[in-house]
Amino acid sequence: MPAGQHSPIDTVVFDLDGTLVDSVYQHVVAWMGAFRDVGLQVSGSDVHRCIGMGGDRLVAQVAGEAAEWAVGDDVRRAHDSHFRDLMSQVHETRGASDLLSRLASTHRLVLASSGSQEVTEALLSTVDAAGSLTVVLSGTEVAHSKPAPDLIQAAMHAVDAERAIVVGDSVWDAQAAQACGVPTIGLLCGGIDEASLRGAGAGSVFAHPADLLAQLGRSPLSTGQPALNGS
Amino acid sequence: MPAGQHSPIDTVVFDLDGTLVDSVYQHVVAWMGAFRDVGLQVSGSDVHRCIGMGGDRLVAQVAGEAAEWAVGDDVRRAHDSHFRDLMSQVHETRGASDLLSRLASTHRLVLASSGSQEVTEALLSTVDAAGSLTVVLSGTEVAHSKPAPDLIQAAMHAVDAERAIVVGDSVWDAQAAQACGVPTIGLLCGGIDEASLRGAGAGSVFAHPADLLAQLGRSPLSTGQPALNGS
Repeated sequence: MPAGQHSPIDTVVFDLDGTLVDSVYQHVVAWMGAFRDVGLQVSGSDVHRCIGMGGDRLVAQVAGEAAEWAVGDDVRRAHDSHFRDLMSQVHETRGASDLLSRLASTHRLVLASSGSQEVTEALLSTVDAAGSLTVVLSGTEVAHSKPAPDLIQAAMHAVDAERAIVVGDSVWDAQAAQACGVPTIGLLCGGIDEASLRGAGAGSVFAHPADLLAQLGRSPLSTGQPALNGS
Repeated sequence: MPAGQHSPIDTVVFDLDGTLVDSVYQHVVAWMGAFRDVGLQVSGSDVHRCIGMGGDRLVAQVAGEAAEWAVGDDVRRAHDSHFRDLMSQVHETRGASDLLSRLASTHRLVLASSGSQEVTEALLSTVDAAGSLTVVLSGTEVAHSKPAPDLIQAAMHAVDAERAIVVGDSVWDAQAAQACGVPTIGLLCGGIDEASLRGAGAGSVFAHPADLLAQLGRSPLSTGQPALNGS
């Protein structure tokens, strides 16, 4: 291959919450309710910024190491309970099924979610084209959750990826991808702003899966270049 | 007064949701559930950006004029029901009571919330120093809700304000203030990013009420200048 050209992207590693399913706000409210259950007040916007990292990290990140030590497992259990109450509201993000269907013929598609296997499967059931995913990995299958690189590495290993790209909505997706030397396409539909996503390493940013699909020809998925859109 | 000097700020007009109380994420989830109840899928991040405008505008803004015409009132009723289920989780934003207590001796403090009177009163009961507010205005008391200027104008009129400033977390607060020729201090604790707040006209931006209180001496509240912080 001539110098300066990139080999084509063969694998797309998708995040779940905020990327393929519109579940971020339910997660935030579930965490706020869970912290309240143990007598702690946390900021909604602080929790929002932590969605997408592993739940094993979130309590300490939002409320400090002392809270994690004292009540971390209680908060996680309460979150799961609150989230179950809200899960019926969750649907796919705009264009998620169409994007998966379109990419399934040209790329290997892997899901790498920080959530538990049970919740991951339940949320994926709301995505029509979830069957297009070659492999589904949840946070419970690796030792270190996002933003550690473990989950992205496991995803790439599972399909023997040569050149992958991550599609995610959180800074933790971009950080995990960067730690593997993999580029990131950021999506705004999880409610994290473009400056934060770019600052964490997302080379290109789209509004939602439908927007990425509409601009697929000039996206890194088609060109193999890490960043082409200037928006 | 010498040319180039500003008269001091005498009145602070506070927004409620996302500014004095940490209720934005519960509102988003309540709206998502309400739209789902009538068979509509809406994006959580689209709803988030609309929190702070009047509920009379939100349905059309999120789901289009046809949805407003067909089911607008149904969605609003369902939102109120879903929100009541989540209201016990809502607490004041970081430092809200301390900020109100500190400012009460130097400024007239007015609340101007787009919400209904009943919900406004319920949410205010979670703020320790809500008694420091001279006047409380809810969205039901004016003909046109934010981002129309009516509520800010009514707030200023109610205390005979000469020079006011708005403290809010949404672009609608900043737009309503601009329409009255009043500067805005933006807060990030409602989860709206700094670029959006500044783009809508917020001359200075702080993380939360505690951050504004800590930097009060160099804020527009003390200096009378519209923008001094560069963050």
